[in-house]
Amino acid sequence: MRENRLRRLWRDGKKTVNGWLGIPSSFSAELMAHQGYESITVDMQHGVVDYATMVEMLQAISTTDTVPMVRVPWREPGIVMKTLDAGAYGIICPMVSSREEAEELVVWGRYPPRGTRSFGPIRASLYAGSDYGRHANAEVLLLAMIETRGGVENLDDILSVEGLDGVYIGPADLSLALGYGAGFDREEPEILEVITRIAERARAHGKFAGIHTMSPAYARRMWDLGFHFVSLMTDARILANATAALLAELRGGAAEAEKGY
Amino acid sequence: MRENRLRRLWRDGKKTVNGWLGIPSSFSAELMAHQGYESITVDMQHGVVDYATMVEMLQAISTTDTVPMVRVPWREPGIVMKTLDAGAYGIICPMVSSREEAEELVVWGRYPPRGTRSFGPIRASLYAGSDYGRHANAEVLLLAMIETRGGVENLDDILSVEGLDGVYIGPADLSLALGYGAGFDREEPEILEVITRIAERARAHGKFAGIHTMSPAYARRMWDLGFHFVSLMTDARILANATAALLAELRGGAAEAEKGY
Amino acid sequence: MRENRLRRLWRDGKKTVNGWLGIPSSFSAELMAHQGYESITVDMQHGVVDYATMVEMLQAISTTDTVPMVRVPWREPGIVMKTLDAGAYGIICPMVSSREEAEELVVWGRYPPRGTRSFGPIRASLYAGSDYGRHANAEVLLLAMIETRGGVENLDDILSVEGLDGVYIGPADLSLALGYGAGFDREEPEILEVITRIAERARAHGKFAGIHTMSPAYARRMWDLGFHFVSLMTDARILANATAALLAELRGGAAEAEKGY
Amino acid sequence: MRENRLRRLWRDGKKTVNGWLGIPSSFSAELMAHQGYESITVDMQHGVVDYATMVEMLQAISTTDTVPMVRVPWREPGIVMKTLDAGAYGIICPMVSSREEAEELVVWGRYPPRGTRSFGPIRASLYAGSDYGRHANAEVLLLAMIETRGGVENLDDILSVEGLDGVYIGPADLSLALGYGAGFDREEPEILEVITRIAERARAHGKFAGIHTMSPAYARRMWDLGFHFVSLMTDARILANATAALLAELRGGAAEAEKGY
Amino acid sequence: MRENRLRRLWRDGKKTVNGWLGIPSSFSAELMAHQGYESITVDMQHGVVDYATMVEMLQAISTTDTVPMVRVPWREPGIVMKTLDAGAYGIICPMVSSREEAEELVVWGRYPPRGTRSFGPIRASLYAGSDYGRHANAEVLLLAMIETRGGVENLDDILSVEGLDGVYIGPADLSLALGYGAGFDREEPEILEVITRIAERARAHGKFAGIHTMSPAYARRMWDLGFHFVSLMTDARILANATAALLAELRGGAAEAEKGY
Amino acid sequence: MRENRLRRLWRDGKKTVNGWLGIPSSFSAELMAHQGYESITVDMQHGVVDYATMVEMLQAISTTDTVPMVRVPWREPGIVMKTLDAGAYGIICPMVSSREEAEELVVWGRYPPRGTRSFGPIRASLYAGSDYGRHANAEVLLLAMIETRGGVENLDDILSVEGLDGVYIGPADLSLALGYGAGFDREEPEILEVITRIAERARAHGKFAGIHTMSPAYARRMWDLGFHFVSLMTDARILANATAALLAELRGGAAEAEKGY
Repeated sequence: MRENRLRRLWRDGKKTVNGWLGIPSSFSAELMAHQGYESITVDMQHGVVDYATMVEMLQAISTTDTVPMVRVPWREPGIVMKTLDAGAYGIICPMVSSREEAEELVVWGRYPPRGTRSFGPIRASLYAGSDYGRHANAEVLLLAMIETRGGVENLDDILSVEGLDGVYIGPADLSLALGYGAGFDREEPEILEVITRIAERARAHGKFAGIHTMSPAYARRMWDLGFHFVSLMTDARILANATAALLAELRGGAAEAEKGY
Repeated sequence: MRENRLRRLWRDGKKTVNGWLGIPSSFSAELMAHQGYESITVDMQHGVVDYATMVEMLQAISTTDTVPMVRVPWREPGIVMKTLDAGAYGIICPMVSSREEAEELVVWGRYPPRGTRSFGPIRASLYAGSDYGRHANAEVLLLAMIETRGGVENLDDILSVEGLDGVYIGPADLSLALGYGAGFDREEPEILEVITRIAERARAHGKFAGIHTMSPAYARRMWDLGFHFVSLMTDARILANATAALLAELRGGAAEAEKGY
Repeated sequence: MRENRLRRLWRDGKKTVNGWLGIPSSFSAELMAHQGYESITVDMQHGVVDYATMVEMLQAISTTDTVPMVRVPWREPGIVMKTLDAGAYGIICPMVSSREEAEELVVWGRYPPRGTRSFGPIRASLYAGSDYGRHANAEVLLLAMIETRGGVENLDDILSVEGLDGVYIGPADLSLALGYGAGFDREEPEILEVITRIAERARAHGKFAGIHTMSPAYARRMWDLGFHFVSLMTDARILANATAALLAELRGGAAEAEKGY
Repeated sequence: MRENRLRRLWRDGKKTVNGWLGIPSSFSAELMAHQGYESITVDMQHGVVDYATMVEMLQAISTTDTVPMVRVPWREPGIVMKTLDAGAYGIICPMVSSREEAEELVVWGRYPPRGTRSFGPIRASLYAGSDYGRHANAEVLLLAMIETRGGVENLDDILSVEGLDGVYIGPADLSLALGYGAGFDREEPEILEVITRIAERARAHGKFAGIHTMSPAYARRMWDLGFHFVSLMTDARILANATAALLAELRGGAAEAEKGY
Repeated sequence: MRENRLRRLWRDGKKTVNGWLGIPSSFSAELMAHQGYESITVDMQHGVVDYATMVEMLQAISTTDTVPMVRVPWREPGIVMKTLDAGAYGIICPMVSSREEAEELVVWGRYPPRGTRSFGPIRASLYAGSDYGRHANAEVLLLAMIETRGGVENLDDILSVEGLDGVYIGPADLSLALGYGAGFDREEPEILEVITRIAERARAHGKFAGIHTMSPAYARRMWDLGFHFVSLMTDARILANATAALLAELRGGAAEAEKGY
Repeated sequence: MRENRLRRLWRDGKKTVNGWLGIPSSFSAELMAHQGYESITVDMQHGVVDYATMVEMLQAISTTDTVPMVRVPWREPGIVMKTLDAGAYGIICPMVSSREEAEELVVWGRYPPRGTRSFGPIRASLYAGSDYGRHANAEVLLLAMIETRGGVENLDDILSVEGLDGVYIGPADLSLALGYGAGFDREEPEILEVITRIAERARAHGKFAGIHTMSPAYARRMWDLGFHFVSLMTDARILANATAALLAELRGGAAEAEKGY
């Protein structure tokens, strides 16, 4: 089976950058896969991406050696299994708030005896090799998002679930959950404390941790805090910001207030 | 944030008509959005419409000031949240039978602190404006369908859920639930009594009520009964009926027995 | 090979009605195919339909015994041949203005020795049968639209092209070509004269003739004038008109000025 | 309503073959529907098929008299009901492990009074006829997959659910559940015993049974064991195997180790 | 008919910026339409965009007041007319090298009596209004690309074609045609002379001129040279450049050599 | 620029096999790309494949080192250039009958100074590398199909066109052109003589030659005749034949008469 390069990099102490795709296009996915990310996540939760487009985007990413991951829209067994069958080498699952919820992800994401994932890796066995079935449990990454009050409170319980590989922080939801406005790259001490603790506890449990960021400077701080990987903006945000900046430069004024999420 | 025109119209005592789309095409959606409906609902439950097509249909409707709504296929958090992120200004949720089920809809459909909707309004913030996150809880409509025995029995419980904006009646399912055949524009006293009661109780709770109808005459009766809005047939039904009538007129005979739902 | 029912009906003196599809959806195509048309034309010229959608619409029509036809976007060999390979039993070609142009249609639409159509009926042989290649020249209809000044002037030349099965009138373009505004169901004597002459000359050449109409009454007049088939509005026009009428009836006013083509 | 030919065939003691489609294309679906299967199942679980493509594939299958069935991705009410509305004449539901889970399938798959399926057979009523609503409960097949430990243990409980028509075996998952590697056409006595028992108990309950196989020889054995129908490979597997064999024959060597699932 | 805002702006002496879309997605199109361009061109020539996607992208752009334009893949009547029917308010036609070729564009792009455009503005009449047919010849922009040797040599002949509204420069092809390498924002005196001359001759003929640029600085120079509008990069190029810059900033090194066109 | 492996293999005297895809699916394309072909041709002429699907299929093929080629639907500049921009490393052009037609292919397929291909390799530069523009003329294969009477008669004229890399035989059309029925793997002396001559003349001109075959045995004969590459059936034909054989084996009878092309 094709190895999951992320596991090796992280075990070797490397810090990686993860692309984040919400534009539903295999062309823009292929374009992004050529920019040098170690991994790219197709976002089926908040991205404008459904299953059919996700598969085409995974194919596009697979023209490079960028590791393909997917954020599933929800902790629902049908889509978790279909996403894995499509060849995702990592699953990021939103809003995991308890040990039970993390356990569900693992049960649906691992073949017996660890879980009850149904067998039928129709595209995964093309991408990974015909021995996918024997090695998938060891290679595919299962990551739970810590972004709710429950997730923060039950952090150690979640991290202790065997078969879960790590956690990922969605700062906007985490901020809302803690009573702040939605946003990224937070500086509030309470939020920073939680973020720091998540990275530390993950490492204490021998697990991986990642976080979404909106600037290279903040991303680097997160690497320094111990996160194994950072996501840096999204394709849609990069496109909107850069376009607004170009138009402002052309027109000689300040960048317009940005539209969009 | 762009206001939800339906709320203002209804509060001003206006009665509105809602279009209903089951044909999976952004072109026919745009065509319908030009016909003068105050709102149009893309039907992901019984319509031949999935998420990707729904997004394109919302874009087509957004070329006009018709308020875009979506009936979700089921009370499932993944699709409820994705639909809202896509810019739906109203969600109609099928088969809500209890306070708990209505509460689920609200929890998934509202940002904290009222609910736990995850933050990422990728297209909604384009359609609504960049302040969508701050005002969405107040603008977006959450409507529960009353069409099961449980829904009828627990009507007041459902209507008392804070954050639920109103109810919508699916007469075919309601009829089946009450032991009648499937159908619309019902005249049976028992069914009419339930319909009347739903409109009255909704108003008593300060909430909105709508119902699906199959003729202008019945629709007007429903307005008179107190419903804030009516849906009038569906795109597919309008097309089939009108085509059958034209062919019958051309051929000089009676309209053929209609095919289809 | 599955027979082309239109040929038999017309030879038996039957008058037929042809549906006309511009909405890009295999679902609405299937719905329309159940309404009782003898044939349905998927409009790739002015409809919002490209090749991929056209194929799906032909499949949908093929669930019934309605004869599937296609109006190609232009007299271009690539799309003419791909449309035939997809299983169209009739091709309507816009704006044929001369014998040479009609000859091109026939050359691309017929296998050797009559023409040079390339062999590869990938879906046609599923729909028609594995002997499609031997009988297609005799079954498939090739119809040239007469709607330009040249088409009117060279009518007999065009009709005398061997292998061309008939002509079809697009009244809007014909009206523009004759110096009138665009429109259908024309009553101007000059236009009616041309229309009448086209039907007569087609019969004189032993060929078929059809025309697009916008009302059952006009359609019947065209049957009486000798046309073998009439098209009656389009799916989009039927849907828009019927919707506007319903909304006007509900609101108690006159139908709004219709939007759209 | 169009009859469900499978029911009649099985009641007459006929053994049938079921095609299995994982390639997301209405063209290949139509091609397969012309090969002589009594039924074809579109696989939304492990196939690369989502709802929109499934509908188009059902349309393609409906150009023939092959009975259209669908394996749903999971026991989730939204997709079960949408699949039935799309015209599936049979639903195969993965991983049914208990009487409660089988009951859920029946509740979502049957109209009242047996279940609570919501009414809106938008395409089903085109395919089946306008009386679909009255006869669907009697015609549509609901089949539960027995492929987990729970499914084997609770076999009689599951088979005793009224409204469930039968069971279907997924040998790969069943093998994993029993502690073996994933695979088909199993010869292990323990697995064969379970397979045999499933066929016997289904018949004892007056229900239908089917199983997935990977070779004609094994398929025939399963017929002889009492299974009413067998699936024979999948479109993707047939294509990959046959291609590998052709290339090996051309190059004069042995067939390459097959890639893919 | 909805006015073509570009004509008014240019006649008022305003300089405008034109977006350029090659990513095949109505979502990214809508995102770009919110950034403040006066017009946006969907590129069907070098963009990864076909007709069906172009229509959806036009719909997305039409949710704003950005003027929608399309570069057609070639001077072919079928696609020119379908693009106009879809609601494009401007057509940019590649590689116009002679008066005859410019005349073809006008003949296909204008209704009689100026041209022979076929009547059927199926979406255009939704976007523009039901009087589209009467005013389209006066509102829709037809622009010929000057980017071949012939185009440069026959510049005045092309500009003198009545009904052609202006010209657009593709610097990469123009550079290749003049014997240089492909590229944008050229400083070579020979190329600059040709560019300057094209702007001047366009104005001398009372026509509009635009040019593609890759930087705000060069774009402003082109405005100063007399061009009415500039295009500034493409969505794909903006996305790739900005992503490469972010990754370089994060990793502390120089931006990688850019991949892609 | 990524090298075109086919050129090297052929120059080294290797014989290659070319896959042929008519099923419109990036999944089946990826499946086929894993079977060991040296090249795969996506068939936009007789396959059920349009531009958008072709791009996705090229992406799928690009996950392997199989060389991606495309048969264009016709010798039309728009689609020839879009196909090359999409990253095709070879173009097979149908029905080239004269030197002038071959010259057109080269003019549209080569950048200046050899031709006038327009610059904008939007996906090609991702697949091939950012120096694609400088090397594409030397790497991309342009192949003309010899399958008409004119093509046979003007064979040497066609082969002498500089910039054309070789020829490809479509035996079905060639047979029709020579007065025989459509079919493959021909044994008629006249046809075999023409086939042999084409291979010989190609080599005499220092060009490549390929041919479509329907069996490994015939394919090997063609290698022995001097053809550099053979295509062996199509995905659709392999799937239909293998399925029919499996069903016949299961049912104990002979394979049914095959349906389809």
